[in-house]
Amino acid sequence: MRIRLTIAYDGAAFSGWQSQASGSTVQDVLESAICRVAGGTVRIHGAGRTDTGVHALAQVAHFDTPGVRLGTGDWARALNANLPPEIRVLRAARVASDFHARYSAAGKVYRYVVFNRPVLPPHLHRRVWHVPHELDDALLRRATGIFVGRHDFRAFSANRSKPVKDTVRTIRSIRVVRSGPTVRLTFEGDGFLYKMVRMLAGAAVRVAVGRASLDSVQRLLASGSCGRWSYVAPADGLFLVRVIY
Amino acid sequence: MRIRLTIAYDGAAFSGWQSQASGSTVQDVLESAICRVAGGTVRIHGAGRTDTGVHALAQVAHFDTPGVRLGTGDWARALNANLPPEIRVLRAARVASDFHARYSAAGKVYRYVVFNRPVLPPHLHRRVWHVPHELDDALLRRATGIFVGRHDFRAFSANRSKPVKDTVRTIRSIRVVRSGPTVRLTFEGDGFLYKMVRMLAGAAVRVAVGRASLDSVQRLLASGSCGRWSYVAPADGLFLVRVIY
Repeated sequence: MRIRLTIAYDGAAFSGWQSQASGSTVQDVLESAICRVAGGTVRIHGAGRTDTGVHALAQVAHFDTPGVRLGTGDWARALNANLPPEIRVLRAARVASDFHARYSAAGKVYRYVVFNRPVLPPHLHRRVWHVPHELDDALLRRATGIFVGRHDFRAFSANRSKPVKDTVRTIRSIRVVRSGPTVRLTFEGDGFLYKMVRMLAGAAVRVAVGRASLDSVQRLLASGSCGRWSYVAPADGLFLVRVIY
Repeated sequence: MRIRLTIAYDGAAFSGWQSQASGSTVQDVLESAICRVAGGTVRIHGAGRTDTGVHALAQVAHFDTPGVRLGTGDWARALNANLPPEIRVLRAARVASDFHARYSAAGKVYRYVVFNRPVLPPHLHRRVWHVPHELDDALLRRATGIFVGRHDFRAFSANRSKPVKDTVRTIRSIRVVRSGPTVRLTFEGDGFLYKMVRMLAGAAVRVAVGRASLDSVQRLLASGSCGRWSYVAPADGLFLVRVIY
């Protein structure tokens, strides 16, 4: 029986999603909780491998239950009772055995929350990207506009140990919404390369504070594979908002 | 020269405001930062001695500068450079030598932020009071209404090592505002006794979830000194919003 979980977490508390030898990751902590509830070792598959410090409002993951039969509501309650408050299972649902959290995904929505004032209120520490310098919203919109559409994003991605062959992705929309000191950049696309959202947001904000030109960003994107964008925005303000199926 | 500071802090990171032998308090951390900036030992006086875990959006404090002459904008910048991100000086201003952060205060505004859904999103952990049970907003308003006005709040306060003689206080208003799952209870009064806001909010919420009667709360308040309210709301969702001069 395959279970799909919708999960929220505070990325500041973990070394990212993906299981690793050193450090506590969201995947490791979830697998331990499932083991305590169900008494068997399971592997859980997430839709997106968020970096250290990156948050999730609704990450999706699946696993196959090791024998035990619990109602889906019971799974959420039982897991939450065995998880730290920095991870919450929002929903659990039974899915068909061919559902795969990562490979079945048709797209994802990520959001950068930028706080744009000289002094960062302490309650926002590690929950927003603090940009103290004045941001030009019009420039920010023009810069993000460059990325919308189908492009080879190789210059705006970092290498993983296993290189990705196809670096063409489609960004359906990037919405920029300011509410007082808070600027939200919401990216919707069919998929994102390693550190791609952090490099796109980094580039757009560098343009908007006057430290990079629209032209340089445009040229780098058009170049396809000659060169790479160097400024990666901090993980603090990045949220995986939704996975689209 | 006397300096008045307006300070925000994340209470989850500290053992309350007031200096103590064991544990890191906001006052201790601020005094160390002033010492590093100014090179002298100073005593800082806060308007309100917030408990462990209680947050501040705009605490007020004063101190006398040990010789050094810095512009008021420089004080804020220099202190922030020497403080952890969980404490931010929002403003520094020169004040008359008879200003006292605590004794000159004419009132205070405190706010409880209640999150009223079964599952608490991880980003709100230690920043709200999580009440999973259904809250009756009408009952909540009636219960808070009991406390508005001039009353002897002895039954809704805890003892300090040094007992307070006068336990009569005036609550000017308690506003209850719901926005989806979030309920904000904002208390404005001329002063608050030790743990008084936590006991008043505790009582109002107990009534609103059906675990205490309006009548029992009313009787206890009227009794003046016979008995004491036993349920103290957790510090997590409490914010010192403003000090009134």
